[in-house]
Amino acid sequence: MIVVLKPDVAAEKQERLIDWLKSLSLNVHVSTGEYQTVLGLVGDTSAVDTALLESLEIVDTVKQVSDPFKRANRKFHPENTVIDVNGVKIGGGNFCMIAGPCSVESEDQIIGIAKAVKASGAGMLRGGAFKPRTSPYDFQGLKKEGLRLLSAAKQETGLPIVTEIMNAADLPLFDDVDVLQVGARNTQNFDLLKELGTVGKPILLKRGIAGTLKELLMSAEYIMASGNENVILCERGIRTYSDYLRNTLDLSAVPMLHELTHLPVIVDPSHATGIARMVSPMALAGTACGADGLIIEVHNDPEHALCDGAQSLRPEDFDKLASKVRAVREAVI
Amino acid sequence: MIVVLKPDVAAEKQERLIDWLKSLSLNVHVSTGEYQTVLGLVGDTSAVDTALLESLEIVDTVKQVSDPFKRANRKFHPENTVIDVNGVKIGGGNFCMIAGPCSVESEDQIIGIAKAVKASGAGMLRGGAFKPRTSPYDFQGLKKEGLRLLSAAKQETGLPIVTEIMNAADLPLFDDVDVLQVGARNTQNFDLLKELGTVGKPILLKRGIAGTLKELLMSAEYIMASGNENVILCERGIRTYSDYLRNTLDLSAVPMLHELTHLPVIVDPSHATGIARMVSPMALAGTACGADGLIIEVHNDPEHALCDGAQSLRPEDFDKLASKVRAVREAVI
Amino acid sequence: MIVVLKPDVAAEKQERLIDWLKSLSLNVHVSTGEYQTVLGLVGDTSAVDTALLESLEIVDTVKQVSDPFKRANRKFHPENTVIDVNGVKIGGGNFCMIAGPCSVESEDQIIGIAKAVKASGAGMLRGGAFKPRTSPYDFQGLKKEGLRLLSAAKQETGLPIVTEIMNAADLPLFDDVDVLQVGARNTQNFDLLKELGTVGKPILLKRGIAGTLKELLMSAEYIMASGNENVILCERGIRTYSDYLRNTLDLSAVPMLHELTHLPVIVDPSHATGIARMVSPMALAGTACGADGLIIEVHNDPEHALCDGAQSLRPEDFDKLASKVRAVREAVI
Amino acid sequence: MIVVLKPDVAAEKQERLIDWLKSLSLNVHVSTGEYQTVLGLVGDTSAVDTALLESLEIVDTVKQVSDPFKRANRKFHPENTVIDVNGVKIGGGNFCMIAGPCSVESEDQIIGIAKAVKASGAGMLRGGAFKPRTSPYDFQGLKKEGLRLLSAAKQETGLPIVTEIMNAADLPLFDDVDVLQVGARNTQNFDLLKELGTVGKPILLKRGIAGTLKELLMSAEYIMASGNENVILCERGIRTYSDYLRNTLDLSAVPMLHELTHLPVIVDPSHATGIARMVSPMALAGTACGADGLIIEVHNDPEHALCDGAQSLRPEDFDKLASKVRAVREAVI
Repeated sequence: MIVVLKPDVAAEKQERLIDWLKSLSLNVHVSTGEYQTVLGLVGDTSAVDTALLESLEIVDTVKQVSDPFKRANRKFHPENTVIDVNGVKIGGGNFCMIAGPCSVESEDQIIGIAKAVKASGAGMLRGGAFKPRTSPYDFQGLKKEGLRLLSAAKQETGLPIVTEIMNAADLPLFDDVDVLQVGARNTQNFDLLKELGTVGKPILLKRGIAGTLKELLMSAEYIMASGNENVILCERGIRTYSDYLRNTLDLSAVPMLHELTHLPVIVDPSHATGIARMVSPMALAGTACGADGLIIEVHNDPEHALCDGAQSLRPEDFDKLASKVRAVREAVI
Repeated sequence: MIVVLKPDVAAEKQERLIDWLKSLSLNVHVSTGEYQTVLGLVGDTSAVDTALLESLEIVDTVKQVSDPFKRANRKFHPENTVIDVNGVKIGGGNFCMIAGPCSVESEDQIIGIAKAVKASGAGMLRGGAFKPRTSPYDFQGLKKEGLRLLSAAKQETGLPIVTEIMNAADLPLFDDVDVLQVGARNTQNFDLLKELGTVGKPILLKRGIAGTLKELLMSAEYIMASGNENVILCERGIRTYSDYLRNTLDLSAVPMLHELTHLPVIVDPSHATGIARMVSPMALAGTACGADGLIIEVHNDPEHALCDGAQSLRPEDFDKLASKVRAVREAVI
Repeated sequence: MIVVLKPDVAAEKQERLIDWLKSLSLNVHVSTGEYQTVLGLVGDTSAVDTALLESLEIVDTVKQVSDPFKRANRKFHPENTVIDVNGVKIGGGNFCMIAGPCSVESEDQIIGIAKAVKASGAGMLRGGAFKPRTSPYDFQGLKKEGLRLLSAAKQETGLPIVTEIMNAADLPLFDDVDVLQVGARNTQNFDLLKELGTVGKPILLKRGIAGTLKELLMSAEYIMASGNENVILCERGIRTYSDYLRNTLDLSAVPMLHELTHLPVIVDPSHATGIARMVSPMALAGTACGADGLIIEVHNDPEHALCDGAQSLRPEDFDKLASKVRAVREAVI
Repeated sequence: MIVVLKPDVAAEKQERLIDWLKSLSLNVHVSTGEYQTVLGLVGDTSAVDTALLESLEIVDTVKQVSDPFKRANRKFHPENTVIDVNGVKIGGGNFCMIAGPCSVESEDQIIGIAKAVKASGAGMLRGGAFKPRTSPYDFQGLKKEGLRLLSAAKQETGLPIVTEIMNAADLPLFDDVDVLQVGARNTQNFDLLKELGTVGKPILLKRGIAGTLKELLMSAEYIMASGNENVILCERGIRTYSDYLRNTLDLSAVPMLHELTHLPVIVDPSHATGIARMVSPMALAGTACGADGLIIEVHNDPEHALCDGAQSLRPEDFDKLASKVRAVREAVI
């Protein structure tokens, strides 16, 4: 960690700061420049509160030389993490499509979609049972019954299931779920993350609504530090001032995350764009820049004829997309 | 709710949409323009999923005419809500300063600060016992012991106490706390909000890190819809690309929230700026644009001589600020 | 245009507004809802100042039903525009790679790179002669001499040249330039846009640093309204709070712009990311989501051995990328 | 300047970088840490291209220790700059209200408003003659005739006039203008800034639509480096995802700019909010946090009865505001 002091700092104040830093068991290298003095801190700087340090009157800026995430950091784990979900692998060259409806609605719906997406090559089934909604008056999902229906679809097709958990108190209900998803509004719900770190199942961690990459990695670190190393990161669009789309899908996060961490990174083009006709181009783009997988909403056509055009693809659209995704994978490797 | 259709929509598709809307017990007024058709929906549109509607192939845009928040809405409750915390009032012309340390550290510290800020005119004491930290390796607060120390300070000074709760499971520990604070990372932790709606205590709800005003009001609505109408809103800075400050304090949110809602609105200049010497000017600005209160970090000088300049003011700085705040209050009324 | 009035508007004020709107030669359809009145304006609403209307005390919101851009609008020009630059086509199925150095430095450099990128399949040569720099103390380009060197490279290789113009007063110097580029800082320099509308050359218009898609299209409209219909739009990353990359490349803008406009859309992965090792994945992603071309920085290896890793690719990297780009094009069509 | 190298950099590459840095006449201090090596550059680092350096493969991050702006920097000019506009002073304790209509429309209008705002205490008159408009089809101002009308109002009232210039070619028309305004869309129109640096008149420089403070100061530096030290900075709201207001007024920029620079800083609450009833609270807030002045839109009531509620205040509202502004000034000093 590097601490740049303001110009013309009183010697006494500088000494007091250095003494305090040394009291934290750090070695302090002082290099006096023409205008400003720079302190180099060597040792376990994780005990230092950067924000506090930055706010000191005599400090100009603080620069963390090493990343604050350790377990998620590729520097210390150069090998890609491969996550195995009942035999379906993701990461380290293993590409996986996760598909299914926004909400689980009925047994027919979920089994129908599960069969369709499996036939098109999906490796896992997604479906919302507990739904986070901005409004307390909106439909919040079938909850326990939704989880039961997902289990039925899993039994029928063999596809592992992925669904969102919003509350650690609900964990007992998720026994048959294969991958627990943390939604964008809970990315920094640290108490939930800690609990999920004690569960022996992969976690699909979505980037926060306006989250930075460092925050995403620190949230993964919360899960990993509690004992669960199986974290899948998911880029799902970030909030900007964009005018025609719900969010801005930040695909450059994919290669950057691959550089920063050994964890698998997938892309969610459905929530990022909110418009079905944008899902396929953005899914292909996510594949082209190296994502380890995609999570895509697919609805059951007959029952949702009306919603043609919604953020969910119809099974036949997903099938066409899946072929192109495979072709792009081959083109870029 | 107004639904603008795309130009040249097939009559059959338009009919199907109208039938579906009518099936939701809505009256549909069709007005056919030169280029585009506009549907006016009258009735209880809260059952309509706007995102779904917007995503339909034949729909251009959906415009909500009425705000989705009801209980928090000034339109339906023109009178300002005044929240009474053990006799200390906030809102509707009652201005309240809430002050105290970032973290509760010791009995001497918290009682010392409590006495000082009370003498300067603070109406409530704040102090962190459970601390949300981006890194799992950072200090997470004294927790239960911190709450005990806050109680001691309350007993000594009579100041009601405000502190953050991160997990509904911790509620039994917060018995002696007067105002429960929801932090910026939990503003959309809907399960927590619902639980706090069942608690008979005022909730201090911070705006999300990149939250919109509508989201803040919908989160208040979650609490209110669960039975607790005593919500204090708090502007604490939002995430932007700003280069010299941690967040961008959005003070125009204050008069705008006052227009949208009857709930009290306070400002947190300490977290918004992260720099002590910015706290006073921004506290005064928040007061000048009509905030109902301020929540300000004050540290105990002797023990933190080092931190001179941190985001916390020293008691003597807070005292000077408090006088100016009163003078600005008088100037703008 | 739809004008939603506030609830409980005084009849007299409403009448005054309607009279004023009629005085602008508009037909006003009044539809009175349960809570709020909605005015539908039919006729040439381009004369209406939306911002003014929106700011009226009795107006809740104003909704533009039709897009304010006309010439750039796909609704009125469903066919893709194909731009022909000395025989090199872009748009409407014609894909074009534009490559070259950040700055033109010497005759050897620019001719060497031009030959290399042509051999790899680039259709045009780019190179900066006039450089917009945030600091007045930074190198501002070789200017006139840089343009001369670009001409030399054009003569040697036959590649049309693309370079940035910052000031209409410099136009006489750009006689031999084939495509005039407007940089992100000048996207809303309306006087420059108007002048470029009178020039008989294609304009490569970059999206503003924090520009919306509507702003980009309105800026294209400025050029087109002045008589020049040959505008190429370029997504080059937008400003966000992203922490590890200079900008956020907004690739979902590509399919969305294709929906909104008939103009060609290209992607600049070099400026968007600022890091060479991110250029290839993002170029492939841009291709996969349907861009009509790419503009990529390529430097001349021998002279820049030091800069290995900069935002510019080496010619051999560009060559590999170009092959993959072609493969992705085939995969997604 | 501090350059942090990546871990495990090959000695040869590190040497090549150090040699190159030394060739730029810099002293390079190498400090080898446990994991990473840090280079401290001493000397005139303005010749170093930070972006280039940052993009090198072996470089982790580059940290500028000193700010890149020199003439605008308070470190080198601790005294506040006081700008004198025909006897009206701004900065260094001199507070100035600039008021007037959005657009100059007629002689009666501009003279009427000028007299009114002068009577209320305004020190200068503003009014748009050349109007930057997002759409080429919108009214672009009275131009030359507008400037003539401003002159007439100046002659009548003695108020110095402030108006926007969009194109250096128009300079001869601005002979009688006292302060030249650069709008938010031209903040980085470097050619315009350079020309304005050669003019012997104060420049009112607005912050860019999504500009950082460093960018604003670098744009001021362009003007100052060309010879004109009389620059007034103006915070006018920045682009965010805010939902109920046009822009987010970043008032914390005021005390931060005062720390960074000696130039006067004013606030434009009219454009920032776009809503008349938000102008007064935000003007008061701007005053409370230390702005050196305000620029406020005032319209002429009789002719604009309709626009009651627009972003412009009526003269009587401005009069009330002006009194409160004076009271707040006294409260905070």
